[in-house]
Amino acid sequence: MSVTAPQGFRASGVRAGIRAHGERPDVALVVNDGPQQVAAGVFTRNQVKAAPVLWSQQVLVEQNLRAVVLNAGGANACTGPDGFGDTHRTAEKVADVLGCGAIEVAVCSTGLIGERLPLDHLLKGVEAAAGDLADGEDAGTRAATAVLTTDTVDKQSAVSRHGWTVGGFAKGAGMMAPSLATMLVVVTTDAVVDATIADAALRAATAQTFDRLDIDGSMSTNDTVLLLASGASGVEADADAFTEVVTEVCAELAQGLQADAEGVTKRIAVTVTGARDDHDALVAARTVARDSLVKTALFGSDPNWGRIAASVGASEATVEPETLSVTVNGVLLCEAAAAVGDRHRADLSGPEITVEVGLGLGDGRATVLTTDLSHAYVEENSAYSS
Amino acid sequence: MSVTAPQGFRASGVRAGIRAHGERPDVALVVNDGPQQVAAGVFTRNQVKAAPVLWSQQVLVEQNLRAVVLNAGGANACTGPDGFGDTHRTAEKVADVLGCGAIEVAVCSTGLIGERLPLDHLLKGVEAAAGDLADGEDAGTRAATAVLTTDTVDKQSAVSRHGWTVGGFAKGAGMMAPSLATMLVVVTTDAVVDATIADAALRAATAQTFDRLDIDGSMSTNDTVLLLASGASGVEADADAFTEVVTEVCAELAQGLQADAEGVTKRIAVTVTGARDDHDALVAARTVARDSLVKTALFGSDPNWGRIAASVGASEATVEPETLSVTVNGVLLCEAAAAVGDRHRADLSGPEITVEVGLGLGDGRATVLTTDLSHAYVEENSAYSS
Repeated sequence: MSVTAPQGFRASGVRAGIRAHGERPDVALVVNDGPQQVAAGVFTRNQVKAAPVLWSQQVLVEQNLRAVVLNAGGANACTGPDGFGDTHRTAEKVADVLGCGAIEVAVCSTGLIGERLPLDHLLKGVEAAAGDLADGEDAGTRAATAVLTTDTVDKQSAVSRHGWTVGGFAKGAGMMAPSLATMLVVVTTDAVVDATIADAALRAATAQTFDRLDIDGSMSTNDTVLLLASGASGVEADADAFTEVVTEVCAELAQGLQADAEGVTKRIAVTVTGARDDHDALVAARTVARDSLVKTALFGSDPNWGRIAASVGASEATVEPETLSVTVNGVLLCEAAAAVGDRHRADLSGPEITVEVGLGLGDGRATVLTTDLSHAYVEENSAYSS
Repeated sequence: MSVTAPQGFRASGVRAGIRAHGERPDVALVVNDGPQQVAAGVFTRNQVKAAPVLWSQQVLVEQNLRAVVLNAGGANACTGPDGFGDTHRTAEKVADVLGCGAIEVAVCSTGLIGERLPLDHLLKGVEAAAGDLADGEDAGTRAATAVLTTDTVDKQSAVSRHGWTVGGFAKGAGMMAPSLATMLVVVTTDAVVDATIADAALRAATAQTFDRLDIDGSMSTNDTVLLLASGASGVEADADAFTEVVTEVCAELAQGLQADAEGVTKRIAVTVTGARDDHDALVAARTVARDSLVKTALFGSDPNWGRIAASVGASEATVEPETLSVTVNGVLLCEAAAAVGDRHRADLSGPEITVEVGLGLGDGRATVLTTDLSHAYVEENSAYSS
């Protein structure tokens, strides 16, 4: 159930004093001991990218990683050339203690935007983390825990199949949107794969999972999803099977992110079917998933299908009222854009809500996961600087 | 200060019992007594349009209106052919009591989506409203008040210049977005204008005012802005001067809508300058204005420029970190996408906040008005079915 589930990986999580308050760990290290060091990465599409993203994108060009170092307590975003220098020195420190090149080290950061990291603390933390590296589940959990911010639980997953294993952890609780969002994910595997297969699998998995999780429509400067392959199982993975398992692990991590999102009281899956094509379905589903009026209604357990119909109608997707239907928690409430019986037949009192929008125009289909818009979301995001 | 400020107009607002609870009026009538009956209209771009929008769009093809009837207590949206029939019968009833054709009567509705209107109450309300028609400010205020839903105050405006007057009222408190949103606006004038000038002036004014007010990114099924011109002043209006005054009235009404938006504790103006072009500026400003993390930070009086920079970077507008600056309430907090001093120099404790984003790439400029995302917004929209 962690990044250390596959063979060939060690991990650690320590407290370096980067977080201003409390006793929580804040530096994590994940090391690939090989024999292979294949790697792939997917990053935020935000035009304002944090220093660690700029760095990691650069080193990933080689598709080869020995280690990933992660910190909470500061995003190192909007920190200028000095901030980039801090990331570079962090990678060099990791390279130094592990005996590899800095170009083999990816860096991930999360926390407040716009402030420099306390580099001395971070570099000491890297030393401590290197000294604490271990295999086994506990070590993976320590790493997964060290990168949490407003998250309330660690998010981990692992699947073994076909003679190899894929494991991973994820961090992220708000600001999650189309292109990931203060979401840091490390996925590891001991399957034997080349860089092309690893890259394709990670992109396909991300597109189907993290990219379809939309908590608040915001997109972070720091989102990073990394895949490290050690080849330690000695078993070559079929490309399709590998994509399938990586997608499975990413899907479980995405569900964990949804369940632990800031202020969540309802977990909502918005599915659009019958769209002109899959792209239109995704556009429509995302529009509904982001709609503040829909999200507040669902927070109030109100099956307000009218707001859902209005939202989908306002999307860029093609919608014909004559063939528009809305089903909430399995109860058809709207057909041909008009009411079907009393909407209160749909009971939304539980924590899981499914919204199905039928467009009746084609075969396009997509699901987006989101959460409700609650008092707790407002509280957490107005009181916490991140 | 109302739709009855220009000569040639009468108005009324009565209680017809369409609202389920309370004693508030819910039917309004605005009548143009001429000598001209020139009219123009702008409607929601939502693909799911309410019956009164479909009706009014149709009658506006003639660019000629004798009257507008408006109701609160039900949107008559997503009500199918029967709902359209209800709108048609309402217009016929108005035509009947005024002695004109139904094709000269626009209809506006606001309230819950998906439920039929109590037509008998509405038709009796039309009779009562016709009997109550009067000129003078009180009559205009009665009409402006009858269409309020979660609004807390009526929104009215009037400007007299060049020998003619433009007046208007607006209704809308949430669900206001790029293309208007459960926003009903009636603007009247006694200037002598032809339909071409009226239409051009209304479109220009709407694009600069209501279209740049974005409370929650949601777009209603019912948004309607109507302009009725009586020509009763006998003074022909210059096209540019007319556009200017209509824009002035619409701007005041839009500010009223912003100030009375659901759950508002801060009135926020987001201005983007230095964009590649005006369109890019508008896209960037709208993205920031809709960002839940920005809006909750401002609710908490936190000058969190990092979230603003992240938001603009995530927009479809072209952004270069090297030339990106953020100024909040006149204090430069970020330059070249990096901090300039302590962000708490910007005091956001007051109810007005200006956010200025400089992109440093060109001459494009746009301002979007919005509000914060508060506990009260969540409360109002989770407890109230609309």
